[in-house]
Amino acid sequence: MATKTDTATVTGAEVRSEGPIKRSGNSHVNLNGFSAPQPLAPIRTHRKKKYRHVAAVHSKPRTSCLSHDAESTPSFLGFRNLMVIVLIVGNLRLMIENFKKYGVLICIRCHDYQRQDLILGAALYFIIPCHLFLAYVVELVAAQQARRSLRSNGKKRSGTATPGGSYVPSDEERQKFHSTWVLVAWVHGVNATLCLTITSVIVYFFIHHPLIGTLSEVHAIIVWLKTASYAFTNRDLRHSYLHPSNREEDILPEIYQQCPYPENITLGNLTYFWWAPTLVYQPVYPRTKKIRWVFVAKRMAEVFGLNAFMWIASAQYAAPVLRNSLDKIATLDLSSILERLMKLSTISLVIWLAGFFALFQSFLNALAEVMKFGDREFYADWWNSPSVGEYWRTWNKPVYQFMKRHVFSPLVGRGWSSGAASIFVFTFSAFLHELLVGVPTHNIIGVAFIGMIAQLPLIWLTAPLEKMQGINGRIIGNCIFWVSFTLIGQPLAALLYFFAWQAKYGTVSRKV
Amino acid sequence: MATKTDTATVTGAEVRSEGPIKRSGNSHVNLNGFSAPQPLAPIRTHRKKKYRHVAAVHSKPRTSCLSHDAESTPSFLGFRNLMVIVLIVGNLRLMIENFKKYGVLICIRCHDYQRQDLILGAALYFIIPCHLFLAYVVELVAAQQARRSLRSNGKKRSGTATPGGSYVPSDEERQKFHSTWVLVAWVHGVNATLCLTITSVIVYFFIHHPLIGTLSEVHAIIVWLKTASYAFTNRDLRHSYLHPSNREEDILPEIYQQCPYPENITLGNLTYFWWAPTLVYQPVYPRTKKIRWVFVAKRMAEVFGLNAFMWIASAQYAAPVLRNSLDKIATLDLSSILERLMKLSTISLVIWLAGFFALFQSFLNALAEVMKFGDREFYADWWNSPSVGEYWRTWNKPVYQFMKRHVFSPLVGRGWSSGAASIFVFTFSAFLHELLVGVPTHNIIGVAFIGMIAQLPLIWLTAPLEKMQGINGRIIGNCIFWVSFTLIGQPLAALLYFFAWQAKYGTVSRKV
Repeated sequence: MATKTDTATVTGAEVRSEGPIKRSGNSHVNLNGFSAPQPLAPIRTHRKKKYRHVAAVHSKPRTSCLSHDAESTPSFLGFRNLMVIVLIVGNLRLMIENFKKYGVLICIRCHDYQRQDLILGAALYFIIPCHLFLAYVVELVAAQQARRSLRSNGKKRSGTATPGGSYVPSDEERQKFHSTWVLVAWVHGVNATLCLTITSVIVYFFIHHPLIGTLSEVHAIIVWLKTASYAFTNRDLRHSYLHPSNREEDILPEIYQQCPYPENITLGNLTYFWWAPTLVYQPVYPRTKKIRWVFVAKRMAEVFGLNAFMWIASAQYAAPVLRNSLDKIATLDLSSILERLMKLSTISLVIWLAGFFALFQSFLNALAEVMKFGDREFYADWWNSPSVGEYWRTWNKPVYQFMKRHVFSPLVGRGWSSGAASIFVFTFSAFLHELLVGVPTHNIIGVAFIGMIAQLPLIWLTAPLEKMQGINGRIIGNCIFWVSFTLIGQPLAALLYFFAWQAKYGTVSRKV
Repeated sequence: MATKTDTATVTGAEVRSEGPIKRSGNSHVNLNGFSAPQPLAPIRTHRKKKYRHVAAVHSKPRTSCLSHDAESTPSFLGFRNLMVIVLIVGNLRLMIENFKKYGVLICIRCHDYQRQDLILGAALYFIIPCHLFLAYVVELVAAQQARRSLRSNGKKRSGTATPGGSYVPSDEERQKFHSTWVLVAWVHGVNATLCLTITSVIVYFFIHHPLIGTLSEVHAIIVWLKTASYAFTNRDLRHSYLHPSNREEDILPEIYQQCPYPENITLGNLTYFWWAPTLVYQPVYPRTKKIRWVFVAKRMAEVFGLNAFMWIASAQYAAPVLRNSLDKIATLDLSSILERLMKLSTISLVIWLAGFFALFQSFLNALAEVMKFGDREFYADWWNSPSVGEYWRTWNKPVYQFMKRHVFSPLVGRGWSSGAASIFVFTFSAFLHELLVGVPTHNIIGVAFIGMIAQLPLIWLTAPLEKMQGINGRIIGNCIFWVSFTLIGQPLAALLYFFAWQAKYGTVSRKV
């Protein structure tokens, strides 16, 4: 605001009311610009200037504030406000245009949930957790065997106890533990994979509606991961139990002492793990003291509201764009496909952000509150990611922690390089993503798989940007993340799976 | 980034390479998130952890960063980057859509400049400044009379000299000065208004092309304002010359001492004022020492480039929207008009911003450089205006300074209230705006007039927002400014004048 300078230079046209200036700190706004408080000045009589038309408006050289030789760069906050306004107005216009073209596309009564879908979906909902129960039984047996092995009915064990309190197993014991573990691992593996396979087969061949299919598939994958975590963690706990050690690198986390192996192998403990909002098994979790039911109610209201929003947005805004793209894809009209992709990207971004919030912020927090689960860090501020790698580390912490603890870390421990272990993690993740998207849509076209694998070169490309001095590297990396992921990747994948579905089935919702 | 917390809590899965930790300050990036430099630690041997599957991922209660009970609000800079990207992608898409619909609408060869327009435009370009020369002649005569009056051929003057060095005029002298001034004022008034009237009549009835007409009208208005400033300033200087005074409120600005009245009444001095990038006359201006021709060349290149951009944007993006709106306006289809207005607002905003920069930053700076004119503050950071009033004080400083010095300030000096003086200023400005827009488009429909008058309630409404504590009041005021001015006001005015033109003449450019 240049008005202060004006006050200094305009010597002939100060417009003050007639009469003496009082000592004042009042702010004084009038239309000629004196909006700053008057500086405290000695009391003196001040008569109005006589010659008003001679004010020296230009009395010293000044630069324009956008010139390169300006003393200081001006703020551009006003343009940030303008950007938000233009975004809102532009999208409101698209909404008006959509309404004029299509009217209201939302149809609460019409749905294509077939009876079979609902029955099978419900059945799977109850069948899938049984595999987790089976895993518990396996661990119970293994724990009992471990207990017996340790008590040994008085018979001395064949290993050596060290002076520091550790126990070094003999070769025979080591062999026995290993063969036990192999058996346990096989049973767990078959159990969990059976669960996933049965679910996938049922969803692929018998459940038509992709939403019910996706929910079942997600449930099966979660149980698969939890079973794996349960098995691996208990293996290590059992090993530590059988071969106690005081060495620093063998010490178990302090929090586990509240429930040492094998006291954690109980149905109650497993049930808690079954429902807890995490994929990594721990005998003990940090807990909160009480359930805030108002908090839970608010979070569930958010879940409901956001789901309604997503459903409306999909039906009213995403579906028409997807449908209008079909012939362009069929004729490979590239510029039109690009245009459709750009139009789809805004709405798919909005739906995805809503979905992220509904799942990771609202639903998981509600679940954690009901379970009195203490650690609510389900995500970090991934939207600020200066690189694609940082995004994958922060947006979905449950999965990230699982991969780090049960896949990445053990591989590196076995001598794999960090890069090789990452490739393995992303390949595994790509496989799961393809199951998650391809099976419920009955088109395993490999787009989700390739999409995940393609993250690796992007991670490698943007990793240096994280470490760069100054803020520009981080901004560029952030932009690369947004463009590749939300403006190319997601809408393209959505378009391709939608196209594949249409190619297989024809129309999927109410005709326009 | 929660990875530092992870390092603290994950006690069992630190993935470091085998072997001792060296004292290190290296930054170390791997895919499990350790991207911070390792803290300096004493040298110790660190063997890999044995039990990788038992890492205590959850060891203490934490909140989600978007929860209300989070310790600190996360940064949202990533979303600012996203906003920019979405804006760019959205408008790129509209450009692709426009191209597919209309192809290239820019036509360099086709123009509708009639021969008569060009001849009359050129004639006016030379005729208009003659009125400024006439004003100089009037002032010259007045100055000569003042000199004679002061020398008085030895005869004593009838007023009284005070001990302090001032001179108090007698009633006879006061009367004579006043009647001289009335005559001078009338001649100036007739001269300047004749200029404006002749130009307006020629433009309205004889110059078809609105662009040539607008340039002529702007020229005439500028000369009118400069003549007024020249007359008023010299009147006060002459009064001070004839009635010298040492009182504080009668003192002239220091910078004028370099060229005291009546030495400033020369053709050279007037010519400088004629070309100087200001509307307020001063006998002396702050000057720069030399002309940076590279600077001038760069600024003219900007002017040229921006004009080309504006022409392309108007022909390719604004014209189709305007044309498509005609039938909607004719049938008063309000929702469609609203939709068209919103679509027009983005492109009109862009064209206006380009025009602002081309005129106030590039052209005026180039002119000032060539004239070695020192004060380049042609505008302040108006985009940050926290109120509509602040905008009008900062976006066009030449006009604002003129109004303040020659209209507002004298009125307040006569006893008008600040509010009444503002109403007068805006009414006067509204009249000029209507001349500027209505005359070249041959449709004096009053929209520009009403638009300027309507600023007064907006100024009154947003003035309190300037003074509010904290930043929210300023942001709201800024948004009200943007929405009312650039998203409603301008596109609406453009639409209405375009509609009026079409109603009068039919199509104006190449048919699509």
